[in-house]
Amino acid sequence: ERYGDAAADLLGMLAYGEFRAFEKLSADAAMAPGMSDRAAIAEMAVAEYGHFQRLCAALASHGRDPVGAMAPFEAAIDAFHQSTQPMDWLEGLIKAYVGDGIAMDFYRRIAAYVDPQTRDLVISVCDDLGHSDFVVGRVRQAIAADPKTAGRLALWGRRLVGEAFAQAQAVAVERDHLVRLVLAGGGGDQDELEDLFSQVTDAHVGRMRALGLEA
Amino acid sequence: ERYGDAAADLLGMLAYGEFRAFEKLSADAAMAPGMSDRAAIAEMAVAEYGHFQRLCAALASHGRDPVGAMAPFEAAIDAFHQSTQPMDWLEGLIKAYVGDGIAMDFYRRIAAYVDPQTRDLVISVCDDLGHSDFVVGRVRQAIAADPKTAGRLALWGRRLVGEAFAQAQAVAVERDHLVRLVLAGGGGDQDELEDLFSQVTDAHVGRMRALGLEA
Repeated sequence: ERYGDAAADLLGMLAYGEFRAFEKLSADAAMAPGMSDRAAIAEMAVAEYGHFQRLCAALASHGRDPVGAMAPFEAAIDAFHQSTQPMDWLEGLIKAYVGDGIAMDFYRRIAAYVDPQTRDLVISVCDDLGHSDFVVGRVRQAIAADPKTAGRLALWGRRLVGEAFAQAQAVAVERDHLVRLVLAGGGGDQDELEDLFSQVTDAHVGRMRALGLEA
Repeated sequence: ERYGDAAADLLGMLAYGEFRAFEKLSADAAMAPGMSDRAAIAEMAVAEYGHFQRLCAALASHGRDPVGAMAPFEAAIDAFHQSTQPMDWLEGLIKAYVGDGIAMDFYRRIAAYVDPQTRDLVISVCDDLGHSDFVVGRVRQAIAADPKTAGRLALWGRRLVGEAFAQAQAVAVERDHLVRLVLAGGGGDQDELEDLFSQVTDAHVGRMRALGLEA
């Protein structure tokens, strides 16, 4: 398969997502309760920046301007972050884990339909996030120490998935060829999109459970 | 020479300074006028985080807890950043260049008096900053486009050096063995400290000139 517009869209969207994740996590580091947690968050941020660089390099190697490839996705990704500003350290952690998880589920599924090289890159970036152990441990500790927080954090998880889906739909409306790619990949079946959203929802429920929270 | 308390102080101070520089630069990235400048600032931030990691590893390899080694310098470095919040992108750039420059001048000079391994690490970290070309180019462009900004930015440079010296003095008062190290290195000469400050001032004037600003 040729390196097409959909592949450039996928890499551009993922690249801008990773860049914003870098910015948000770096900012969240200041909310950490102590220096080692602060450094752990910073390390996660730096890993996201590394992905951003790899994705930009891949775009450039295909003759695409990375800045141009990212531009169509800035509004949706910025809107997601704007509407999900964490109020504290725990909300920031959950956002990193749950928000990245949802984004990666979408990216992985779309990657199934692009050229193998792009697919491998996307999957390697998605697999490399590895926030899970640190975040799950910290959130479970916090809930154990103060079980009342679980209700607030469960609500926060619901807000995150709601805003993420709203922005995913906004992107789908504007980036026609991404949607056509997914539909064509699924044999032109119109249920393919619904199936995608319900798969991502299932994975989200799994992540909330891992945190010890109701989805 | 043995790896001593002064070496641990130097590495701890530098490590916390680099970590805060990482946090500040990441936050400043959002003020950048476009995506490529934003990415350039983020890259500088990530380089500072890399230094932080190397410095922590060096502390740990000497059996020192990095968090403990950084702790005595948090107040002074935090106070510096608190009192020098950039109002815009240009002020952020100048702070990165001028502020880091001043800090590195102090670190390099102190490094002359510690064990060779620590000295090499500190010098390599200080040399690797390489903000210069990017920042000098951007600031000169901005002044050429709007010469009136030069006055405000020159004032900003003076504020940066003033606050940096105030915090350096606060550290000197509290960390006796750092001062004794410098004094002993200079043959016990009391002028050694004054000489240090005047050397740093000269280098600062040179950096301001490079930016096209009056010191």
